[in-house]
Amino acid sequence: MIQKDLIADLELKWNRIQLEMQKTGMDGCLITADVNLYYLTGRVYNGYFYLPVEGKPWFFIKRPNGLSGDRVEYIRKPENITDIFREKNIKHPDRLLLEADELTYNEYIRLLKIFDPRETGNATTLLRAQRCYKTPWELEQFRISANLHNKTYSEIPGCFHPGMTDLEFQFEIEKRMRSNGSIGLFRAFGSNMDIFMGSILAGENAETPSPYDFALGGGGVTSMPLGANGTLLREGTAVMVDMAGNYTAYITDMTRVFSVGKLPDPAYKAHEVSIEIIREIEQISKPGTLCAELYHIAERIADKEGLSPYFMGTKQQAKFVGHGIGIQINELPVLTPRSKEVLQPGMVLAVEPKFVIPRIGAVGIENSYIMTGKGLERLTLAKEEIINLL
Amino acid sequence: MIQKDLIADLELKWNRIQLEMQKTGMDGCLITADVNLYYLTGRVYNGYFYLPVEGKPWFFIKRPNGLSGDRVEYIRKPENITDIFREKNIKHPDRLLLEADELTYNEYIRLLKIFDPRETGNATTLLRAQRCYKTPWELEQFRISANLHNKTYSEIPGCFHPGMTDLEFQFEIEKRMRSNGSIGLFRAFGSNMDIFMGSILAGENAETPSPYDFALGGGGVTSMPLGANGTLLREGTAVMVDMAGNYTAYITDMTRVFSVGKLPDPAYKAHEVSIEIIREIEQISKPGTLCAELYHIAERIADKEGLSPYFMGTKQQAKFVGHGIGIQINELPVLTPRSKEVLQPGMVLAVEPKFVIPRIGAVGIENSYIMTGKGLERLTLAKEEIINLL
Repeated sequence: MIQKDLIADLELKWNRIQLEMQKTGMDGCLITADVNLYYLTGRVYNGYFYLPVEGKPWFFIKRPNGLSGDRVEYIRKPENITDIFREKNIKHPDRLLLEADELTYNEYIRLLKIFDPRETGNATTLLRAQRCYKTPWELEQFRISANLHNKTYSEIPGCFHPGMTDLEFQFEIEKRMRSNGSIGLFRAFGSNMDIFMGSILAGENAETPSPYDFALGGGGVTSMPLGANGTLLREGTAVMVDMAGNYTAYITDMTRVFSVGKLPDPAYKAHEVSIEIIREIEQISKPGTLCAELYHIAERIADKEGLSPYFMGTKQQAKFVGHGIGIQINELPVLTPRSKEVLQPGMVLAVEPKFVIPRIGAVGIENSYIMTGKGLERLTLAKEEIINLL
Repeated sequence: MIQKDLIADLELKWNRIQLEMQKTGMDGCLITADVNLYYLTGRVYNGYFYLPVEGKPWFFIKRPNGLSGDRVEYIRKPENITDIFREKNIKHPDRLLLEADELTYNEYIRLLKIFDPRETGNATTLLRAQRCYKTPWELEQFRISANLHNKTYSEIPGCFHPGMTDLEFQFEIEKRMRSNGSIGLFRAFGSNMDIFMGSILAGENAETPSPYDFALGGGGVTSMPLGANGTLLREGTAVMVDMAGNYTAYITDMTRVFSVGKLPDPAYKAHEVSIEIIREIEQISKPGTLCAELYHIAERIADKEGLSPYFMGTKQQAKFVGHGIGIQINELPVLTPRSKEVLQPGMVLAVEPKFVIPRIGAVGIENSYIMTGKGLERLTLAKEEIINLL
């Protein structure tokens, strides 16, 4: 029913969530969002996954998908689930966790009517907290993504020819991503987080704020106001490439900068400061390090170098310098000034101290890391210096 | 503040919605979902759009985006909106429309707390009903998309080389889509509707059901169970191409079939039946035609030709033969057996009678149409017969 190599991994996840439910006195957790289904079952299907506080989970499936087994039940609509609970003597959950930040209001209300629980809790919050500690199988997925991500980035200089626009450059990179196994889909948590395969920021377009909650902006096109906007890749401008590592369901995040010819000195200087911040964060990060401290390190170094006005944007400055990665590009923890989170083994995160230099473009790097018992293990291995495309 | 050529179009939309609010006694409508913001303001931004039942709308903006004007207010969080209502003497909406099928439960509850309305209504329902009648500017967007969609489809035979897989074929098509101006992002309404740029179904993979609510399935890859799955394009199999017409924010939908060499006769026969259904639907469709009737025509012809077991899938058969298109690929109306909807001028829809022939693949075509005062005007003009790739 489930891939053999996955079952130990899934049981580990189920056990952790059951432990959390015990602590908080919840009876069960009903899951239907695609990312959570993939996390808890190793596949996306149309239906629900129910995990009681004790014992094995149940699979409720709306569309035949090859799953079968003694805990797999086919349903037409969610209302059938409680009928099956009665039939099979599954304990009714008086205290039920539902995905309050992922279900629509109407979906949630429908489930409330069906289960009529005495108390509800937020399954999104619990799952986001758990998903932050990656299992061995998940770490392996990241390594696969990272290898292919590294391979694609090594091919980027071959995507350029003089006279092209940022969009044309991006299309060539996308083609190589797909050929190297990118699944295409790029998942993010929350509303207003549209993105397609990643973002290329060239020259002045890096200064344009975006409505989305990514590190930097860019004007984008029509109904997609983010990233490349048709800017000609002019000599003397920086081209920041932040294209997704979505080669498995687990996404690595990496940014590198390319230049069209030689850039003005301040661009190289700021880029070196970004690398300095990254090295400092790599060195200091141990289990127990405060995520907020990593933000402050970045901010302090940027400030010391006189680069505060350009740090994480100009017209609009992002108030984070890194974030967890996983099935979605914006998982926990977050490296923000007020984060209460602490680095722990099993976390996987991206660190991206960036600078936007007016009229020249965005510089700085982003790396993805596995947090081990000792410190950060870097996954993204492409050369970090600015590479001249001419 | 808003593009000049858009303002008449937007006012038309606002007036229609105000008329609906008058009919149902609602005081105002608060919008934040990206597709609805784009529909009502011509752009996606981070914030809210408030349309009172009478008078002009207000723009509440969380991130600077260049918008300014006497009804543009910058906010930090939605709680600021009611403060501004008081300051500016904007009438408090006792009866408020919110996007109940698009906001998450927590987003909705937060707005309920802020506005504490006596009564709420579903803005998603109202907007989906209105969005179904396209304005002149929207029709123009469809024509732009269709022209580029037609251009890309004419380039498809050049994407093939013997020995490639469905995925490799798809990557080549994606590259041409992007070069021809595809915005990449492919929007769909509802949960569990993930799709990336479209779908290619080759050979037996067309028989694999998908969890998603698209016309056909396909096994897909890892966490994206839809469409191409790495099937080798073998001689004697059909390759169905259903790639998005997302060249503006308004998406056209078109399916064509290619063959690797000669197919067995039943495939050509079924393909002709699909074209016959399309011609019949084109002929009968007039303002006032029941959408359900179009489904029944398709079903009757499929049945008469003995093709019912293959109609809209085999192992899993979709219960629709067409759907509205717009900013999302699955808008209203729907061509289902029980639809109560009626064709009206201004609707834009895709009709896709398809057959899945075991071991050979999927055949049939899909066209996009504007419903005019006279009947259906076809937008998708690529040749309809099966094209041999060898």
